[in-house]
Amino acid sequence: MDVLEYLRKKGETVNKEIDKLVPEEIDPEILAEASRHLIKAGGKRLRPVLTLTACEAVGGDSREILEAAAAIELLHTFTLIHDDMMDQDELRRGVKTVHEVWGDPIGIIAGDALFAKVFEALGQTAKKEDYTKKDITRIFNIVSKASLKICQGQAMDIEFEKRKKVETSEYLEMVEKKTGALMQTSTKVGAILGGGSKIETENLSEYGRMMGIAFQIQDDLIEVVGKEEKVGKPIGSDIKEGKWTFPAVKAFQIASTEKRDILLEALGKKPGRIERPEKAIDIYKETGAIKIAEEKAKNLIEKSKSKLEIFPKSEAKSFLLGLADFSINREF
Amino acid sequence: MDVLEYLRKKGETVNKEIDKLVPEEIDPEILAEASRHLIKAGGKRLRPVLTLTACEAVGGDSREILEAAAAIELLHTFTLIHDDMMDQDELRRGVKTVHEVWGDPIGIIAGDALFAKVFEALGQTAKKEDYTKKDITRIFNIVSKASLKICQGQAMDIEFEKRKKVETSEYLEMVEKKTGALMQTSTKVGAILGGGSKIETENLSEYGRMMGIAFQIQDDLIEVVGKEEKVGKPIGSDIKEGKWTFPAVKAFQIASTEKRDILLEALGKKPGRIERPEKAIDIYKETGAIKIAEEKAKNLIEKSKSKLEIFPKSEAKSFLLGLADFSINREF
Repeated sequence: MDVLEYLRKKGETVNKEIDKLVPEEIDPEILAEASRHLIKAGGKRLRPVLTLTACEAVGGDSREILEAAAAIELLHTFTLIHDDMMDQDELRRGVKTVHEVWGDPIGIIAGDALFAKVFEALGQTAKKEDYTKKDITRIFNIVSKASLKICQGQAMDIEFEKRKKVETSEYLEMVEKKTGALMQTSTKVGAILGGGSKIETENLSEYGRMMGIAFQIQDDLIEVVGKEEKVGKPIGSDIKEGKWTFPAVKAFQIASTEKRDILLEALGKKPGRIERPEKAIDIYKETGAIKIAEEKAKNLIEKSKSKLEIFPKSEAKSFLLGLADFSINREF
Repeated sequence: MDVLEYLRKKGETVNKEIDKLVPEEIDPEILAEASRHLIKAGGKRLRPVLTLTACEAVGGDSREILEAAAAIELLHTFTLIHDDMMDQDELRRGVKTVHEVWGDPIGIIAGDALFAKVFEALGQTAKKEDYTKKDITRIFNIVSKASLKICQGQAMDIEFEKRKKVETSEYLEMVEKKTGALMQTSTKVGAILGGGSKIETENLSEYGRMMGIAFQIQDDLIEVVGKEEKVGKPIGSDIKEGKWTFPAVKAFQIASTEKRDILLEALGKKPGRIERPEKAIDIYKETGAIKIAEEKAKNLIEKSKSKLEIFPKSEAKSFLLGLADFSINREF
């Protein structure tokens, strides 16, 4: 199973839907351009493809739920636009971030506009004959609640920046909300709309949740050991922003008092800030925090894959298994 | 009919609902505080009370739709938080704005979190037995589309700030989207959930739309001729921000070339900026732009009231008529 090829192919059907939902013709032009900017810049379309594939895994017809899958990608893009602004990141997917091009006010509205479109898109799928009133209210409820969780996770992430220590459990809660919740929602919505049983839906949901957490840990790792041209944004920016990533949390727990001070300085949490993220990366390596992070991600992926055991062999299942592996082996 | 007393009383039932939907217990604490800040600061609760009253006007039981009414207020509050940030306003409802207290990142998320809650709240009403699948998808669609319109209106407002001229028709389109769309949605949602006929729903919808435009023109006027302690924010800030309000648009059309230059300077659209908003206000008065604005608002209110003629006498109707008058006679 070529995961990337599968993503590309399925992603194209989602792109067509997004193009209909967020057309160039939105007035004023600046809003259309800003809203479409990151979507046009690429991205893996991982979440909407998860929705389509979860639908197929339970025997559903994924062509019926393209708008719902697009809704998931719009939700994701909205959070990227706002997160980039909050983190003052300049690059994303190899292009300038929305607020960098158009300024904060338009960045805020572009995100809001995509968020508004999420529920319009969901409604387009939900109103189809196949779905009951109960399905609709359930789907809307799941997506609203996940949206709030993403906000909570992001608020925790920002609040952590000011702190000199973060526990592993706090980090994991933050990441579960910030990244896990939407991955979980992606598969859950697909499973429900595909007519999955309770156990099928629950297992696909758990697969998404755990894979999402592992995915974020891998994101943390790529940020410190990755290659800038592959990642599409500068290496070490999490450190510059003082983010408590998984490697940072673990390294701090293990490091000597002396090294802890250097780490806190590199993270900008102590006066006399060292402006070289390499200092922090060295400590991540020395303490074995990188290894621990890799193992944690691997462990989560094994668990997430085990949730797929109840499903018979299919292309959908192969993709989900392959995607789980890809999410911790990828370099971008 | 004491409009303010009616608003206060009905508003209280909405407040209780909002308190359940956005409780103090949301994690992290900073997100709960920031999300609840403007709600606790007061406000007229005009939009949710419109929803409840429109429901009653068509013979519905407004106690059944409290969550939907609360959803409308949450949508409004979300836009206030984000708009204040974009306009860099420091005060709202007599208290510091959210971004002023907690900074932009938390301001962005607090707004997003309330927006997420909108659809959860709507779902709570929609899932009740009284409502069909068609009702639900219709309501969600109306609210999503209105949310996008608000974004469009706000983007136009921002785009206008850079311009040296704005036509009356452009201003009216902006205001219809920025303010009219949500007032229209407030009454429309109430009418649909109350079981209104097509013509009843259409008329209440139009009432809300036109009243909303008049309401915004009155807001423009209060900003230049109001009293700061009543408005809860500084007088003349629209001028300082270079906003094309209705008086500004009209004054520019009528003023002499010389006065136009002074106006553009006062609005910060020409070098040699005059830092005194009084200069612009003088021109608004001299040109008769204030009077024209008052007449335009009055005219819209007459039209909006005429939409209520089809309804029999009731407390709900009296309120809607009284509110229309209040919206252009108020000083806050």
